[in-house]
Amino acid sequence: MLADTLARLEPADSAMEDRVAAHLDNLTKPPGSLGRLEALAVTLASITGEAFPRVAPPGVLVFAADHGVAAEGVSAFPQEVTAQMVANFVAGGAAINVFARQIDARLEVIDVGVAAELPSSGVVHEKVRAGSANFVERDAMSRDEAVRAIEVGIRAAERAAEAGCRCLIVGEMGIANTTASSALLAVLTESSVTGLIGNGTGIPVERLAHKQAIIERAIAARAPARDDPLDVLAKLGGLEIAAMVGAYLGGAARRVPLLVDGFIATVAALVACRLGSATRDYLIFGHRSQEPGHGHALAALDARPLLELELRLGEGTGAALAFPLLEAACRMLAEMATFEDAGVAASQTP
Amino acid sequence: MLADTLARLEPADSAMEDRVAAHLDNLTKPPGSLGRLEALAVTLASITGEAFPRVAPPGVLVFAADHGVAAEGVSAFPQEVTAQMVANFVAGGAAINVFARQIDARLEVIDVGVAAELPSSGVVHEKVRAGSANFVERDAMSRDEAVRAIEVGIRAAERAAEAGCRCLIVGEMGIANTTASSALLAVLTESSVTGLIGNGTGIPVERLAHKQAIIERAIAARAPARDDPLDVLAKLGGLEIAAMVGAYLGGAARRVPLLVDGFIATVAALVACRLGSATRDYLIFGHRSQEPGHGHALAALDARPLLELELRLGEGTGAALAFPLLEAACRMLAEMATFEDAGVAASQTP
Repeated sequence: MLADTLARLEPADSAMEDRVAAHLDNLTKPPGSLGRLEALAVTLASITGEAFPRVAPPGVLVFAADHGVAAEGVSAFPQEVTAQMVANFVAGGAAINVFARQIDARLEVIDVGVAAELPSSGVVHEKVRAGSANFVERDAMSRDEAVRAIEVGIRAAERAAEAGCRCLIVGEMGIANTTASSALLAVLTESSVTGLIGNGTGIPVERLAHKQAIIERAIAARAPARDDPLDVLAKLGGLEIAAMVGAYLGGAARRVPLLVDGFIATVAALVACRLGSATRDYLIFGHRSQEPGHGHALAALDARPLLELELRLGEGTGAALAFPLLEAACRMLAEMATFEDAGVAASQTP
Repeated sequence: MLADTLARLEPADSAMEDRVAAHLDNLTKPPGSLGRLEALAVTLASITGEAFPRVAPPGVLVFAADHGVAAEGVSAFPQEVTAQMVANFVAGGAAINVFARQIDARLEVIDVGVAAELPSSGVVHEKVRAGSANFVERDAMSRDEAVRAIEVGIRAAERAAEAGCRCLIVGEMGIANTTASSALLAVLTESSVTGLIGNGTGIPVERLAHKQAIIERAIAARAPARDDPLDVLAKLGGLEIAAMVGAYLGGAARRVPLLVDGFIATVAALVACRLGSATRDYLIFGHRSQEPGHGHALAALDARPLLELELRLGEGTGAALAFPLLEAACRMLAEMATFEDAGVAASQTP
């Protein structure tokens, strides 16, 4: 299934670019005056292959899993919070629930590897294993488990597309997942861990050095093959990150715009691009988070996010907040009058 | 009426700040992790005096007028475009129509001084005079006309509030109004015109020097009293800018959050703050435009906009695009579960 998905990946339709750009210049506004919204419209048209793309309704996929490395004290929250937050997602009380309702999104919560019993309803049960191993001591998961977790994500993207979602927002919940993401990013971009890590959801400054040491020790001990993204993903985890990779690959294979959230989501998107480079064409970046590594991950993807609001929550929240801009870009294309239709004189620039 | 409105202005309710900040820290997210959205929630609570503020439905007010200085060739578009665009607003085909529909806004188009006949329906007719005078040659308007134009704006804000609007977006249409705004800004902030002006909606670079010379000549000839904002406004115009000043004053007096658009809107907001300093408490800045003077106007108001999307259209479009963030801030406060309600463990930061 992963191999099939990778085989179906194609570049976006660049032929749409000139066509949409020409239409934009006929709309009743000075040429280019809607700035990045115009570029966004062009991108959405080439992703979907439609001159008048639509992004509503969006689908939000929140993947949850636990991380063995949480035992090393790298997070401000205890591991139990992963399962507690999944229950909060099911009850509709988390930030992503609120923002998903605002944009009329279809929201799905998928358990890829939470180390606890979860509510039987309201969660898609796809547990690959009950949390990753502590990657300081052993591989976070086997290569086979990594593939299975990726395939959980591919299936979720396909369910969303089948349900009519025209844009995917991929979020996560997993205590300690900034640690796993930082490790992945350091290896994939051949960077030192210093400068990549931040205080995640809020550890005190003095524990940052500990977090950094844990990551450096894990990378040395696991020695992943950096040109084999599946090896890096399996050895450093986590399960929800692997599922996010799959959701991006599955969405890209179906030509669905992928609205990327913050640090963890961007690292997962980077892994997806390493597995299938055409995935990059389908990515739109929602926001720049406060986590220091996020800027580094964005640079590795040559990405410039839409929002910069000092968010550091995850769950898909930053992407959900950016969604109305995608909707506005589509509406601009479809609903604005042309100079001719409206009887407005065009620019008389000599 | 202007005097009454100024007398009714009061500072926002700063007592709300601690109360809302405490509630935010009880919500199921790491403290502060929703960044500027949290600050926005605090601001909206102090503006409205409500712990759970609401901003929907918003009201969009688009004020239109012509500028005599357009005769000097400072714009890429002919003066007729002002009236043509008003017709486009009435027909629903302009960018602000599209974005206003997206946010379910009440939209009103008000003629404060267009130098042409306009459609009889779909426009609020409040023409103070048929365009301002060319301020290179004489005062853009009399002091009495400036007051009357401000009062057009106050009445529009009151109609919107009476109609149930909980947030005001104030936009404009007026060929050559970046020229008038640049002149106002230079005088009010005691700045040189160089560096403030840009190519507006798209004049060629070689005509920028001409635009600058026109503004400098006008300021010297009109010699407005910079500590008398009404004198500056009357002498340098324009009518729609004066109405925008009134809309801000009227909205602030009714404690309605004012979502400020780009360069011209920010200059109008600056004039409003010079007339009644408490107005500043009610302003939220939607976006940073590409017009060079906008950064200067924002700095004069110590303002940091929510979006930065390289827009330079006006009409209220950048503010309308930012509105969903205000809505998200309100929903976050009202709909997110607390740690206690959701049974989620809080941070165990030592």
